[in-house]
Amino acid sequence: MVRIGIIGAAGLSGRELLYWLRNHPEAKVELLTSSKYQRQKVCDVFPELTGYSQVFEPNDVDVSACDLVFLAIPNQASLELVPKLLEQGVRVIDLSGAYRLRDTEVFSKYYQLTHTAPELLDETAFGLPEFYKDEISSARLVANPGCYATGALLGILPLRDLLAELDRAPIIDAKSGVSGAGGRVEGDMTNYVSVNENFKAYRDFARQHKPEIQLYLTEISPYKAKESGIVIFTPILIPVNRRILSAIYLHFPKAVPVAEIRNRFSKFAAEQKFVHFMDEGSLPDLKVTLNSNRVMIGAESDESGQNWVIVTSLDNLVKGASGQAIQNMNLMCGLDESLGLL
Amino acid sequence: MVRIGIIGAAGLSGRELLYWLRNHPEAKVELLTSSKYQRQKVCDVFPELTGYSQVFEPNDVDVSACDLVFLAIPNQASLELVPKLLEQGVRVIDLSGAYRLRDTEVFSKYYQLTHTAPELLDETAFGLPEFYKDEISSARLVANPGCYATGALLGILPLRDLLAELDRAPIIDAKSGVSGAGGRVEGDMTNYVSVNENFKAYRDFARQHKPEIQLYLTEISPYKAKESGIVIFTPILIPVNRRILSAIYLHFPKAVPVAEIRNRFSKFAAEQKFVHFMDEGSLPDLKVTLNSNRVMIGAESDESGQNWVIVTSLDNLVKGASGQAIQNMNLMCGLDESLGLL
Amino acid sequence: MVRIGIIGAAGLSGRELLYWLRNHPEAKVELLTSSKYQRQKVCDVFPELTGYSQVFEPNDVDVSACDLVFLAIPNQASLELVPKLLEQGVRVIDLSGAYRLRDTEVFSKYYQLTHTAPELLDETAFGLPEFYKDEISSARLVANPGCYATGALLGILPLRDLLAELDRAPIIDAKSGVSGAGGRVEGDMTNYVSVNENFKAYRDFARQHKPEIQLYLTEISPYKAKESGIVIFTPILIPVNRRILSAIYLHFPKAVPVAEIRNRFSKFAAEQKFVHFMDEGSLPDLKVTLNSNRVMIGAESDESGQNWVIVTSLDNLVKGASGQAIQNMNLMCGLDESLGLL
Amino acid sequence: MVRIGIIGAAGLSGRELLYWLRNHPEAKVELLTSSKYQRQKVCDVFPELTGYSQVFEPNDVDVSACDLVFLAIPNQASLELVPKLLEQGVRVIDLSGAYRLRDTEVFSKYYQLTHTAPELLDETAFGLPEFYKDEISSARLVANPGCYATGALLGILPLRDLLAELDRAPIIDAKSGVSGAGGRVEGDMTNYVSVNENFKAYRDFARQHKPEIQLYLTEISPYKAKESGIVIFTPILIPVNRRILSAIYLHFPKAVPVAEIRNRFSKFAAEQKFVHFMDEGSLPDLKVTLNSNRVMIGAESDESGQNWVIVTSLDNLVKGASGQAIQNMNLMCGLDESLGLL
Repeated sequence: MVRIGIIGAAGLSGRELLYWLRNHPEAKVELLTSSKYQRQKVCDVFPELTGYSQVFEPNDVDVSACDLVFLAIPNQASLELVPKLLEQGVRVIDLSGAYRLRDTEVFSKYYQLTHTAPELLDETAFGLPEFYKDEISSARLVANPGCYATGALLGILPLRDLLAELDRAPIIDAKSGVSGAGGRVEGDMTNYVSVNENFKAYRDFARQHKPEIQLYLTEISPYKAKESGIVIFTPILIPVNRRILSAIYLHFPKAVPVAEIRNRFSKFAAEQKFVHFMDEGSLPDLKVTLNSNRVMIGAESDESGQNWVIVTSLDNLVKGASGQAIQNMNLMCGLDESLGLL
Repeated sequence: MVRIGIIGAAGLSGRELLYWLRNHPEAKVELLTSSKYQRQKVCDVFPELTGYSQVFEPNDVDVSACDLVFLAIPNQASLELVPKLLEQGVRVIDLSGAYRLRDTEVFSKYYQLTHTAPELLDETAFGLPEFYKDEISSARLVANPGCYATGALLGILPLRDLLAELDRAPIIDAKSGVSGAGGRVEGDMTNYVSVNENFKAYRDFARQHKPEIQLYLTEISPYKAKESGIVIFTPILIPVNRRILSAIYLHFPKAVPVAEIRNRFSKFAAEQKFVHFMDEGSLPDLKVTLNSNRVMIGAESDESGQNWVIVTSLDNLVKGASGQAIQNMNLMCGLDESLGLL
Repeated sequence: MVRIGIIGAAGLSGRELLYWLRNHPEAKVELLTSSKYQRQKVCDVFPELTGYSQVFEPNDVDVSACDLVFLAIPNQASLELVPKLLEQGVRVIDLSGAYRLRDTEVFSKYYQLTHTAPELLDETAFGLPEFYKDEISSARLVANPGCYATGALLGILPLRDLLAELDRAPIIDAKSGVSGAGGRVEGDMTNYVSVNENFKAYRDFARQHKPEIQLYLTEISPYKAKESGIVIFTPILIPVNRRILSAIYLHFPKAVPVAEIRNRFSKFAAEQKFVHFMDEGSLPDLKVTLNSNRVMIGAESDESGQNWVIVTSLDNLVKGASGQAIQNMNLMCGLDESLGLL
Repeated sequence: MVRIGIIGAAGLSGRELLYWLRNHPEAKVELLTSSKYQRQKVCDVFPELTGYSQVFEPNDVDVSACDLVFLAIPNQASLELVPKLLEQGVRVIDLSGAYRLRDTEVFSKYYQLTHTAPELLDETAFGLPEFYKDEISSARLVANPGCYATGALLGILPLRDLLAELDRAPIIDAKSGVSGAGGRVEGDMTNYVSVNENFKAYRDFARQHKPEIQLYLTEISPYKAKESGIVIFTPILIPVNRRILSAIYLHFPKAVPVAEIRNRFSKFAAEQKFVHFMDEGSLPDLKVTLNSNRVMIGAESDESGQNWVIVTSLDNLVKGASGQAIQNMNLMCGLDESLGLL
């Protein structure tokens, strides 16, 4: 039985970890923290989450009795806490963005923070199991991907060698529910009256996701940056609680047969436990991924066969955060990748 | 042309005043303030509100050049500002709760504030035009009613003498959109993820509305408090931006003929510009009052004829706040009551 | 392993049965039908429901190989199909209203149908496990309760003997999401543009729920009808997909101590697997019951101690329909009541 | 005073015409029809629309006493009715798609109807006042643009000569509220439970909009079709009642200075009554166009200066339908273009 700690267990991602880990057959939440709710009982804060008898500890609790710790706290806090935990011999899955980028200068530019543990970046595994299974399995530290990057990368990367032929930068028009856009912590922007019956592009908020997409797109595939950039990325806030629907526009210099695109996605989906490729003629909506760790992918071209739109749907709190984190935990602990996630 | 000032013009009620006053033929907004947006142009903060060339002034701007000032600021701020404005000879419509109750002890209990201008309470008019037209017309200070009180009182008071016969306290189950429950200023409670796909009773937040309903219900009608109380009031937060739907349950010791109830409401509606009584068999929904200064009322009994439910619908930002305030302004300035509100 | 059939498996309740039965350790869906989607694969109609390899059969398929059949079809269809299934020796849980009322005249009046199998009404168990456990366990036919009745009865009946003292008919102001109000099948009334940002009382639609509440309230408890009626019931349509929040107003002739009310609910909750009673000072919202088979109950009085409001929250598709049906199935098959529902 | 008829006045666009024409100083609705509500009073069907004493006539009523008739009926019905009305000497603004395309073969392909009045296509004015003012002013028949075309064309065409330089087909990712996607008439697709908390691409439904965009984009501007097509168009259904937010992706072979783009839009906005160009750094959201006839446009490039995203927001029922129709009516009758629309 893996002994788990969760730092920041009362935020949106933290609560989602609690939700899924309740019924995990091989993991047990030993301790969980919250600065806001410390000393309160889990069942008082989340009456719907039966099965936890614990109270929330303060964030600086001793976690050395845990085998693995999830961090669901802000970037700066993660940045500082991770080296301390590793020193204590605890393995870490960090749900913040602090360790996702490999280049500290890019990190500084997009996160407006100085990276204080650059020595750890080389050994950090990027927690996208579909592409980094081995690295994750043996890692001390896994940087859990952002929800936007997960939705974008899983919609493009399955095309693999075909991506070398793209003659334009992919355009990613990503529509995210509120919990993917700051969740409970931001003020006016996520107020009900601001969001309801509204819809807006909010580039500033999501600026940190673009370098993450660009880094792993070019690291994993043969795609090469174009003169005018690597990707074009527009995040949009939509009036739903959770989930992201990404429309990805690809242009090929000459027509690509439908079968060629479909075969690559079908093969990929067959190999991956949480990837589903839609039947021809179907694009996924948001419904199909609610409360699920799956990403659903659809692909369609226009008459020219050169213009393709790939649509991916995922639940930003599951495959885009806590579900994927548990998937990574399973790999790190030698368990079946899908344990507790079906 | 009436020269208008608006203190707190960038909040929800303030913005709504700007929206309606744009096209008012006899009033002109001379100056408007906002602490949050001071020095910014109205058209930058609210690009949809064309026609204002002004900037937001700070809240302590000199308003002595105005004939009438609307206060759309918190209770404490209103409490302090009103006496200063009256001293300068400016008439005031206060949209806060600071001057709504006549008894300073009740005020202290429900608002948790000490009333610092009790000498003004006697002359304050309660701004419910359907019942206090004369008082409003000649008032220096009008306390604009709360949205809950407006919805409750206009659903009960038209029955007038029949209310003497009620043998139980009316039950008011009032469902309010988010802007009636704290709007943009409250934190977690009005966050999108908290409100969307949710629904909750929030007695604490609306506790100040109950004494207001009780005061004017017994002041205006022959209804007498029952042994177990005056009214039972449950405010509920619903996932819409604006509007309130109130279900009011009345019980009579013996059956009241349908015609008797309907006649009273019909007569009342015929006399009042902004009251509409639904046809038999129809109860209002929220749709019918969006962006309107009207209150729509429906009434229905069960087979016994003793149990009646009255349903009222109104837009909390219009008839429940800024529209009613303009209706009061019209009366105070000798204009047609409905000017600028149709 | 119990062999299950589902007639009407593609409607809202049917789909919900499929969702929960996927992981049930002791039941297996052998066949499932849909008139609309017959011959189509489950995984094509509901791509999010992995684990079903079947196609939808037509509704008149032979179910004699099943041990137990769920009916999730309209009233008239259930009325006719039930006797045929019982004759074949199959046990039945009927999610329609066809067998809920015991009196065929009341049935005719409220359902506008003639009951064609009155001889079955005596042996039908009302599927509210908290009160009819024994009857359900041995029944051939269980009438699964309506969602409104479940929410109302579980908020009143735990008070048991205290209900003899009520001096007025309980008022039930029940706010239901769209799936509790006709779901996908109704036309204009459940269209997005009609429901979104709206809110309305719709007495006509829910008229069949009132006699159900009245029948079991008086059958189970010592509460006696008052001169002006048994209960007052107002169903209201709210803009959420699922769940019902019911406010129940009770009036006692003299004050009832808080502890007396709380003890009865606490004791009841301790005995029942799916009933949760909130801490003092808390009323449930809708969030706490999403996708859960639990009913959450809160209770509060005003200063008089005579006026109480009980608030219940439940998911109309789970505890209000398919979850409760599975709970009944577990009882009928001698399994643990909560199997597959946690 | 212009005498107006409205055929199909109870649908979403028809109701919106009634809403705006109530206060129009130079037009009077003489008669209005509805097949669904014929013989019913307007005030019974739409209690919120005060000021109409009429009943709905049947659709085949004699309109020869009107100066101008709006058609807000399905494509096939418009196709047939238009020639009859013109013969009677009545001028027509058709809100359907029946006369928008100039080529009957393209029409047949996309609308799956045979055009029965091809002789009228040459004289039909396309009712986009920003580009066809003269044609509209003198027209007998105006084809009112679709909401998608309005949102797309007004976001691209102001760039005029710059469009000759585009080296790729514009990508239009258009997110529409439910009333722009079939409104009240479609069944399952616009049911609340299907739309709420969901989000989906629905190419099939909006296929008729693409040829309309393509036709007028190439007719008005120097843009030339690219090898792989004219535009790429993805309509997406979002959970709001009304409004469309379109993201338009343009790629230039070399960087275009910000000032060059901004100047063109600013100049265009200065000339047009209902076009507003956002300040630098701002993209419009949906809020800013609710219940307004304005289109709000924002523009932004990435670091390369080659990739631009233009975002347009409009209310599909106003600038995308009935408001624009009234704007056209004003032009046809020699009135100020904005009369009744502010």
